[in-house]
Amino acid sequence: MRFSKTFIKTLREAPKDETAKNGALLTRAGYIHKEMAGVYDYLPLGLRVIENIKRVIREELNKLDCEEIQMSALQNPEPWEKTGRFSDQEVDIWFKTELVSGGKLGLAPTHEEPITNMLKSYISSYKDLPLYVYQFQTKFRNELRAKSGILRGREFLMKDLYSFHTTEEDLDEFYAKVEQAYNNIFTRLGIGEDTHETFASGGIFSKYSHEFQTFLPVGEDTVYYNSDKSVVLNEEVLNDEVLADLSVKREELSETTAAEVANIFKLKFKYSEPLGLQFGNEDNELKNVYMGCYGIGVSRVMGVIAEKFADEKGLVWPEEVAPYKYYLVGIGENGMMEAENFYKEHEDITLFDDRDARPGEKFADADLIGLPYRIVISDKTLAEGAVELTDRKTGESKLVKLSEIQ
Amino acid sequence: MRFSKTFIKTLREAPKDETAKNGALLTRAGYIHKEMAGVYDYLPLGLRVIENIKRVIREELNKLDCEEIQMSALQNPEPWEKTGRFSDQEVDIWFKTELVSGGKLGLAPTHEEPITNMLKSYISSYKDLPLYVYQFQTKFRNELRAKSGILRGREFLMKDLYSFHTTEEDLDEFYAKVEQAYNNIFTRLGIGEDTHETFASGGIFSKYSHEFQTFLPVGEDTVYYNSDKSVVLNEEVLNDEVLADLSVKREELSETTAAEVANIFKLKFKYSEPLGLQFGNEDNELKNVYMGCYGIGVSRVMGVIAEKFADEKGLVWPEEVAPYKYYLVGIGENGMMEAENFYKEHEDITLFDDRDARPGEKFADADLIGLPYRIVISDKTLAEGAVELTDRKTGESKLVKLSEIQ
Repeated sequence: MRFSKTFIKTLREAPKDETAKNGALLTRAGYIHKEMAGVYDYLPLGLRVIENIKRVIREELNKLDCEEIQMSALQNPEPWEKTGRFSDQEVDIWFKTELVSGGKLGLAPTHEEPITNMLKSYISSYKDLPLYVYQFQTKFRNELRAKSGILRGREFLMKDLYSFHTTEEDLDEFYAKVEQAYNNIFTRLGIGEDTHETFASGGIFSKYSHEFQTFLPVGEDTVYYNSDKSVVLNEEVLNDEVLADLSVKREELSETTAAEVANIFKLKFKYSEPLGLQFGNEDNELKNVYMGCYGIGVSRVMGVIAEKFADEKGLVWPEEVAPYKYYLVGIGENGMMEAENFYKEHEDITLFDDRDARPGEKFADADLIGLPYRIVISDKTLAEGAVELTDRKTGESKLVKLSEIQ
Repeated sequence: MRFSKTFIKTLREAPKDETAKNGALLTRAGYIHKEMAGVYDYLPLGLRVIENIKRVIREELNKLDCEEIQMSALQNPEPWEKTGRFSDQEVDIWFKTELVSGGKLGLAPTHEEPITNMLKSYISSYKDLPLYVYQFQTKFRNELRAKSGILRGREFLMKDLYSFHTTEEDLDEFYAKVEQAYNNIFTRLGIGEDTHETFASGGIFSKYSHEFQTFLPVGEDTVYYNSDKSVVLNEEVLNDEVLADLSVKREELSETTAAEVANIFKLKFKYSEPLGLQFGNEDNELKNVYMGCYGIGVSRVMGVIAEKFADEKGLVWPEEVAPYKYYLVGIGENGMMEAENFYKEHEDITLFDDRDARPGEKFADADLIGLPYRIVISDKTLAEGAVELTDRKTGESKLVKLSEIQ
């Protein structure tokens, strides 16, 4: 993309009401625009980051034969009333609205009820199972406070996967595969080292659920971990019974803050029973379907990556997530000409700063926007038959031949 | 995709409350699922159709240097109050909701106000213009009735493009380019021949807007056209003044019904003036930004294509839109083995009906699902060193060598 043709515009200062680092930096660097607290627009650079995160998740889930769908945001109360979750007392983050033709509706904060209800039309026999269905879907949650940038949205993008099984063993097996897929996803997204599978409270049907928590100073959760981080648990399950279960002692554990980027639940019959999602087994007996659900906060992950790697100069994107690989600057007549040529051959992975601006201004924006590599082509470097390649993360520069840059 | 691994499930009958042909067929063939009137889920096949339509639109718009973004559904009333459009008297299809922390919100039925308002942060000088910004965005409209399947949704997918200019000439020039891009898009989507640019009423700032109307028996609009369809106009502008403008006589015109798949408006200052979107010209004088807006109803286009080409056996998809190119059936031991081999090499473009079912059932589902080509590999065809390739549109079959199928 040519900088001159975009409306990427970096700002010296973030809006005063943007107190979260991720929100402030992403706004200043032209990735997002705030509509109101917890509600953001994704500008061209920001949308590319979101699409990259989606691509990584999609690739890993498709390996497990998961199928992508897209459900509605508007929610008929009926299936939610069967589980008791349409009530504002039970679920306190609903946005509700009304049909002009009469009748209350909700805006989906999650999709267990509608997907369980929908699959009654598609599952009748054990031959229809297992099924793994996911979507990237805008969720709406009426949060009382939303001051964490895109870490906590009133409107945000989530990947939610639901699995459907005939037996508990089959659910357990698939759950383990998703655990592995999630580890792959967070590794590819660059936050693998700091993201830990964490024990959290379960529910009626399972003792534990699991969260994926990225250790982060501004994270809203408190977690406890042992020295090699092989055991991490949410403070909500820090009790004697759980410590015994996990064979760790309280005094071995350290405390830290973390952001929950994903969670996975063995739901078992929690939704299939009240909503009547059953299958006929080989003896033609009707049985409840076993279910699991597996979420990833897509826009939150973007915020976590922004918070985690940013330095005093600006954002630092891991390569799989970055909107472009190269930030390209040409200096001088020959430098600009060579930059044009490079750009034409690497258009899809290059942000070409072709603005009529001082090199210093371009370098500052390169640092703020945080693409993995900056390429500077100037008469000076060309005299040495090379260009300057700078790694945004380490700050290290070296001269390389242009033809060596892929 | 393997049929056995999806939850595609064809239904003998559509739900009783689904009276529209597109809704009934798309439901029976496993493309969509109805949540409530005007609100649908997109199942794996349906989502692929939507993604194909988006891809075609995206490719044509990107050629014009349009930039993709994603704005929010939740709407702050403020910018809408400045144009008077937050009022339910003025705009009668709002879904409204409320923040628990206090304050009314709307669910965006369109995005002129928020994008005009947002761009005040990014446009200050003539150097920042022109700009062309688009999104694929779920829109919400509180329709009193919604009985047309996905032709009229309460929640639906729209592509909306907005352009921003320093002069009227520049707006006119870009408007003409979008007209051409839209013609390209509808041609690629297979409805070019029956989709006509149509004069419709303008507004305060322009005499006319233009719609793209696909002639269709169940279309909700009435349009008039001359013998070679070089002049098509919406009934709302059928009056003496307009007939004189277009140099046609009333008696030359025939009447038909049509579905509006797109519309384009020269907005000029309609939104920039009340919202204060201005730029500094070369003499440092502040001027209103000229605007245009250009919509395409993405999910409606899917419904129009379904309605338009379906026959008594089921759906018929044009190749660029079809979720897969081939519907693959193997019969007999060798037939199944060869089918497996073909599938492995053409996984992305093939729906492999690997179910344990009679060939007749598979052929009926092939017709209902409506992929462009059916491939049948049987011991009988293999004896002739060939497979049977059937064109869904014409119904013609021929024997071809498997290696010739790309």
